[in-house]
Amino acid sequence: MGATRLIATVVLSLLLFLSGSSATQKKKTQGLPRQPCKRMVFYFHDILYNGQNAENATSAIVGAPAWGNRTILAGQNHFGNMVVFDDPITWDNDLHSNHVGRAQGFYLYDRKDYFTAWLGFSAFFNSTQHRGTITFAGADPLNKTRDISVIGGTGDFFMARGIATLMTDAVEGEVYFRLRVDTKLFECW
Amino acid sequence: MGATRLIATVVLSLLLFLSGSSATQKKKTQGLPRQPCKRMVFYFHDILYNGQNAENATSAIVGAPAWGNRTILAGQNHFGNMVVFDDPITWDNDLHSNHVGRAQGFYLYDRKDYFTAWLGFSAFFNSTQHRGTITFAGADPLNKTRDISVIGGTGDFFMARGIATLMTDAVEGEVYFRLRVDTKLFECW
Amino acid sequence: MGATRLIATVVLSLLLFLSGSSATQKKKTQGLPRQPCKRMVFYFHDILYNGQNAENATSAIVGAPAWGNRTILAGQNHFGNMVVFDDPITWDNDLHSNHVGRAQGFYLYDRKDYFTAWLGFSAFFNSTQHRGTITFAGADPLNKTRDISVIGGTGDFFMARGIATLMTDAVEGEVYFRLRVDTKLFECW
Repeated sequence: MGATRLIATVVLSLLLFLSGSSATQKKKTQGLPRQPCKRMVFYFHDILYNGQNAENATSAIVGAPAWGNRTILAGQNHFGNMVVFDDPITWDNDLHSNHVGRAQGFYLYDRKDYFTAWLGFSAFFNSTQHRGTITFAGADPLNKTRDISVIGGTGDFFMARGIATLMTDAVEGEVYFRLRVDTKLFECW
Repeated sequence: MGATRLIATVVLSLLLFLSGSSATQKKKTQGLPRQPCKRMVFYFHDILYNGQNAENATSAIVGAPAWGNRTILAGQNHFGNMVVFDDPITWDNDLHSNHVGRAQGFYLYDRKDYFTAWLGFSAFFNSTQHRGTITFAGADPLNKTRDISVIGGTGDFFMARGIATLMTDAVEGEVYFRLRVDTKLFECW
Repeated sequence: MGATRLIATVVLSLLLFLSGSSATQKKKTQGLPRQPCKRMVFYFHDILYNGQNAENATSAIVGAPAWGNRTILAGQNHFGNMVVFDDPITWDNDLHSNHVGRAQGFYLYDRKDYFTAWLGFSAFFNSTQHRGTITFAGADPLNKTRDISVIGGTGDFFMARGIATLMTDAVEGEVYFRLRVDTKLFECW
């Protein structure tokens, strides 16, 4: 009798445990607060080549529409400009802080009537603190904050997935901008 | 005696259940019909700038090979042309239907001897119905139907993964095409 | 008595089993050797258009910085050059072996002071052996070996994720290079 009741309890507990773990498996966390398994905030600094700053520039226009050129961003909200970059990463918002990594890839402006961009890039780390890459892609509507996708990672960030909340932290004319990247990983291996 | 038999039964059931759930975990569904956890069909409409349609164009050539220019698609199956776009999305195949989102990103033609393309873009939704982005990437052999990958999502499509079956639904010369995008997500959070 | 002890043993075993499977679920394999669920090594061969090899070229410069052009790779470590490619894939390191697929997409050079690249491409297979695509993206620091991300797949590689270890297997001036791609999938459906 006692044994049978014990079995019942045990089985019930196990089933409850299993149904919980099964929910995790299916990744249905709708309604639950989502906690990233890893979070990193960094800044990167983009200095666009404009014909006069070859020394300092970290990015360059490499594609332009028929009505544009590769020294000055095109009219119509830069629609059609594609920019390749290799920008220093810092932990805080100061360009002159320690450069802890590089943000490498491209962005393009894709809309005539107002600013929107599309980004594909990797954050590349090669220090004692972090070694590896995180790769990002997505549409950037250039709102105050906006989310793009973390689509992969290597090294310390092996198989990473998640989202990154971008915020333009500073803009100086058409030469400099600083982007705050709040990286939240939801798959960590 | 009865108790022992009961235990045996219970353990067997649990192990069967576990081996099933373990299979799901490892995502080995080989041979089983795969059901998307979310499915969305939409169309997007690409009107390529050709020097005369600045008003209506939603895309522009921004990269071209040495033998091409940025007003007319290059010879050799447009090999080397890169196009940036911000195209309206509709639920049906009518350009003049309600624009429910934007497809933003780029495509490039990557083969000399026949048409093939490579795409990187996001479907951007910002309505009461859907809010968020789905990001796509992949080779497009321009067959009747072809699959590309869903590599990430944000907002309502947080952490999305899956595939999208593309079909060119209409083509008008080198100015307009309409793409049907049957988006099937297999990871939904 | 015996029954109770049996229950204890069974429950303990199950919990151990469950905690193991739960760890897999959460993908915390830190410290464990990671075994890919699928592995494929292939080579692809890039012959860059240089104004004189239109017949054989499999890739072309389509974007260049203001100081460059689209026939010759730019100075400053080709910073700002974007190249579109459709390169044959072979199982071994011989360009003249059977072409078993195509590597299609783009790479760009993104740094002034030394060579670094960023890649987005798909390996496209359409034979009896393999049918489907694997899509790759990531920063390529052009070290001896370096890892990029596998961000998606279709067909036989449905929903693939993983990493690929790249090695430049041969370089001939600025016209030809051969890349060894050791593709390790850690998510297989």
